[in-house]
Amino acid sequence: MNIVEKNLRELNITLPDCPTPVAAYVPAVRVGNFVFASGQTPIAGGNLVYKGKLGQDLGIEEGYEAARLAAIRVIAELKSVVGDLDRIARIVKVTGYVNSAPDFGDQPKVVNGASELFRSVFGEKGDHARIAFGTGALPDNAAVEIDVIAYVED
Amino acid sequence: MNIVEKNLRELNITLPDCPTPVAAYVPAVRVGNFVFASGQTPIAGGNLVYKGKLGQDLGIEEGYEAARLAAIRVIAELKSVVGDLDRIARIVKVTGYVNSAPDFGDQPKVVNGASELFRSVFGEKGDHARIAFGTGALPDNAAVEIDVIAYVED
Amino acid sequence: MNIVEKNLRELNITLPDCPTPVAAYVPAVRVGNFVFASGQTPIAGGNLVYKGKLGQDLGIEEGYEAARLAAIRVIAELKSVVGDLDRIARIVKVTGYVNSAPDFGDQPKVVNGASELFRSVFGEKGDHARIAFGTGALPDNAAVEIDVIAYVED
Repeated sequence: MNIVEKNLRELNITLPDCPTPVAAYVPAVRVGNFVFASGQTPIAGGNLVYKGKLGQDLGIEEGYEAARLAAIRVIAELKSVVGDLDRIARIVKVTGYVNSAPDFGDQPKVVNGASELFRSVFGEKGDHARIAFGTGALPDNAAVEIDVIAYVED
Repeated sequence: MNIVEKNLRELNITLPDCPTPVAAYVPAVRVGNFVFASGQTPIAGGNLVYKGKLGQDLGIEEGYEAARLAAIRVIAELKSVVGDLDRIARIVKVTGYVNSAPDFGDQPKVVNGASELFRSVFGEKGDHARIAFGTGALPDNAAVEIDVIAYVED
Repeated sequence: MNIVEKNLRELNITLPDCPTPVAAYVPAVRVGNFVFASGQTPIAGGNLVYKGKLGQDLGIEEGYEAARLAAIRVIAELKSVVGDLDRIARIVKVTGYVNSAPDFGDQPKVVNGASELFRSVFGEKGDHARIAFGTGALPDNAAVEIDVIAYVED
């Protein structure tokens, strides 16, 4: 019971309050058995912690941490619509948007910060399809943005 | 009845004919209860109205209008597969691709042009999950591209 | 029977073994009737064949071939979860991530390399919704990345 919450505790992760979008959208939408979570940036304690472009302003380890932070916020979004996180049957698809210098090519290593978190928190249910790519820019010059499609059991 | 068409009239929006893709794809696909609409750029009257990069060639207000125009075309795509727009139960996910100078960070304000339109046209059913990010380039140097996943009641 | 495999043979396409992700994700996920395939780059024989930015290092024809190669790998991913490719009822959505110089605007012509392949291999079931856009960078400087959502009959 409450396996996911237990995993979060063991990882010393406290979920933030569900982020309130600053614009005309909502944190997550459930339709049928699918949940679509809005894009999140690496904010903690109300501050955008990782700003800048990978391969120019930030190194891979910082990018990894940025992706992990953004993923924690995505989990808070998922929780806001499913209530009990154990109801999530699968993290289906993760998209990793990496703010990249034009010659940066290690987006996969950066987005692993999100992917490995989902595996740690959700176990095999965290195994997802993925795309990672380099954006030209991101909101407020965030280092990374992450969004997720999840699936809920009936 | 026909609430969505009534809203469109009150907003003085005339939907264009459903855009015909210039390439090997279709405007929208319905499978199960989901509709996936192809990406749209800010075309009106057959012309790409907003070209260039935000933060370099265009300001936020122009970007907002560009996103709104692209969103109107997305609604035409949705209509082409659902017929009666009142059958749309939810605008589920909006992705906003903003043609951005490398240091532009106001993608959310730009994509609000699409998000606020969906809310005006579909009411609460228009509340969606969202991601907004900066691309390196866009087709024909369009300012914005918008695509949408929607959900239809049985 | 086995129409898709027959089409692949007539096109002289040998599907590669399903690509093993180098990171913490899986090639494809099936939930309900949907299959989400991870992003693929133009790899053949273990080598990334097309590297560089369109409009700078590569021309449209090379980009087209790159998109086609990536799409072949996506088909291998789909096969890894559905077994018989004839069970795919629809290629629903194709996203084409094109590594682009800032002023390159022919992403649609590039992504046609994937779109036309899906039509050749799956027939009318290959008609999909699509978005094509220019990234700021891609993993290992790949020319193109392609991902797909597909739908499977019960």
